[in-house]
Amino acid sequence: MKSVKKNWRADDLAVPQVRSMRAYVPGMQPEGGGWIKLNTNELPYEPSPSVATAVAEEVARLRLYPNPTSRALREFLAQKHGVSPDEVFFGNGCDEILAVLMRVFAGGGFAAGMSQPSYTLYPVLAKIQDAAMETIPFPRNMVLPVEKIAASKANLFLLTSPNAPTGVEFAYADIRRAAEGFSGVFVIDETYADFASDNCVRLLKELPNVVIARSMSKSYGLAGARAGYALASAEIIALMDKVRDSYNVSRLDQAVALAALRDEPYHARLIAKILETRASFLKALRERNIFVHESGGNFVFAEPSSPSQKPGAATARSCYEFLKENRILVRYFPDDALTDSFLRISIGLPEDMLRLLEVLDTWRKNA
Amino acid sequence: MKSVKKNWRADDLAVPQVRSMRAYVPGMQPEGGGWIKLNTNELPYEPSPSVATAVAEEVARLRLYPNPTSRALREFLAQKHGVSPDEVFFGNGCDEILAVLMRVFAGGGFAAGMSQPSYTLYPVLAKIQDAAMETIPFPRNMVLPVEKIAASKANLFLLTSPNAPTGVEFAYADIRRAAEGFSGVFVIDETYADFASDNCVRLLKELPNVVIARSMSKSYGLAGARAGYALASAEIIALMDKVRDSYNVSRLDQAVALAALRDEPYHARLIAKILETRASFLKALRERNIFVHESGGNFVFAEPSSPSQKPGAATARSCYEFLKENRILVRYFPDDALTDSFLRISIGLPEDMLRLLEVLDTWRKNA
Repeated sequence: MKSVKKNWRADDLAVPQVRSMRAYVPGMQPEGGGWIKLNTNELPYEPSPSVATAVAEEVARLRLYPNPTSRALREFLAQKHGVSPDEVFFGNGCDEILAVLMRVFAGGGFAAGMSQPSYTLYPVLAKIQDAAMETIPFPRNMVLPVEKIAASKANLFLLTSPNAPTGVEFAYADIRRAAEGFSGVFVIDETYADFASDNCVRLLKELPNVVIARSMSKSYGLAGARAGYALASAEIIALMDKVRDSYNVSRLDQAVALAALRDEPYHARLIAKILETRASFLKALRERNIFVHESGGNFVFAEPSSPSQKPGAATARSCYEFLKENRILVRYFPDDALTDSFLRISIGLPEDMLRLLEVLDTWRKNA
Repeated sequence: MKSVKKNWRADDLAVPQVRSMRAYVPGMQPEGGGWIKLNTNELPYEPSPSVATAVAEEVARLRLYPNPTSRALREFLAQKHGVSPDEVFFGNGCDEILAVLMRVFAGGGFAAGMSQPSYTLYPVLAKIQDAAMETIPFPRNMVLPVEKIAASKANLFLLTSPNAPTGVEFAYADIRRAAEGFSGVFVIDETYADFASDNCVRLLKELPNVVIARSMSKSYGLAGARAGYALASAEIIALMDKVRDSYNVSRLDQAVALAALRDEPYHARLIAKILETRASFLKALRERNIFVHESGGNFVFAEPSSPSQKPGAATARSCYEFLKENRILVRYFPDDALTDSFLRISIGLPEDMLRLLEVLDTWRKNA
């Protein structure tokens, strides 16, 4: 019956950049139980118990639209970070915040910029806007290329700190110099900042072009809720509000996020547990002469090797596959020479990390 | 301290269409109690009780990312509508679906099209993509301008049926002719179709260029969750999947939507109650010689008048204000000569409508 339009093809009507692009591929979600899942930087602990209480209350109001600006959250976060409510944006995950920034400041001849390696979603978001993406490669030692970033002519720059997937945290002074020299909007994606020794929120008081993006998926144990926020000047926030969906965050997710934010003592305990496990895990890897970057995130970026096998892409892939055969999932980034000899390993429960070390030792003996 | 960049302005860096646009303004959400809220087409009834149960279970999995494609929902909806799972898209509300379609098929010289009046979000979404919006005005009797739509050279056409804000439902045969003649992607926004006498799902089997967009905000009583879906060819769905956020729907909202969909008997009872109240309310308005369009939605579009005051913009505004003074909120669209003499009134509880009639009668006596 479709013969009335038999030569009609939707692909021919899609805008060219969408027709030619590939979608972002999120980390694998395994089916069935028995997996140790260290591939998407989820927290191994439940969120605050107050979340369940808040959700049970909010469910009675589901027939009514949510507050369109997530106002209670903007007010709470303004207090938490010492800014004004009109300097806060709340989004359906940090991914929405990045997409919104790209829609406001990239495309139509305005280029985006990023350092490489970094979050692999950025180039996908630029492509959707048909924006050029200028990539500034890190040196092998992962030191921030401050001067190159400052000199970039991009309209919007995205810097992840602590970086993904390396975990490397950059010094405040270095980020400050890069942002000050840069002429466009400078986004600091602080998805992992709660696990780091410092952050750049105070830079908002110094430079008008800074945006801080935060996720609640990691340190609050809320990957399943979609909750993230941005801090920036009221002028930038107003632009972002123009292009988001008018009801971007659902009632239940607003309630979840607010309950989790209010239970700061619980949040602090979650972070302390991860930092403790991260420290022992880093130590255990180094005792095995495995190179691993110092990490400011809830994951480490390690370069697998064994007494008989040097680091390299083949070694990393062999280790990745062996872990997977033993139902341990980590993340491998084979598409970049700066990442293809490494594995990114999320910090799970202490016993998850011990089991991983056990399997790693078996692999090292046989590799 | 911001003096280091004192002449820096974010507005100068925004893409021109965003800089110049105005955001969509959703219906007013009143503060405090005591309001009869008939302005945003929310249902006056709670969603299925199974929703609360599903949410209480799902909250234990919040630390893990949601299924990125909302797979269980796509599978359920495929069965419900007799299509394949790869012909279903699930979104963070129907608004996300409309935004995604606009990102795939409009902008970069590809125009969008719509009939006028219709959902006032469409032109905002087109503007974000810097896409031209061709508007085809309805005649005063609101009959679908089939030939004009079929002849439109837009790349993407958005038709709301039943229409908003008029409530007018279009005949299947007319929509079919418009979609068949139209050369681009033809979106039928069926946000209100559950309250109508017919819908266009079967058109998917006939024409490859049709997209059906559905909201769960209205007939399922889930405006506070963000849940909507689209049905279309696998080719169109694959394009849409490229440009959505990778985790667009949260765990709790997926659980809410699935529980509500599974309780179809409850859903059918909700709709039956609204249709009954709508019928009595239409009758009551007509008994007062107030013109009102036949409605296929959970609202009516009525043209207020009184024995001493003819219909018109001033009359509609006076009635709107009087209702508001009496804490009854309805929606007024003053920006279009085809809508400025009307009020859109959501169907609430039977007692809400009786109270509205009482206030209306007072206004008519004094108007």
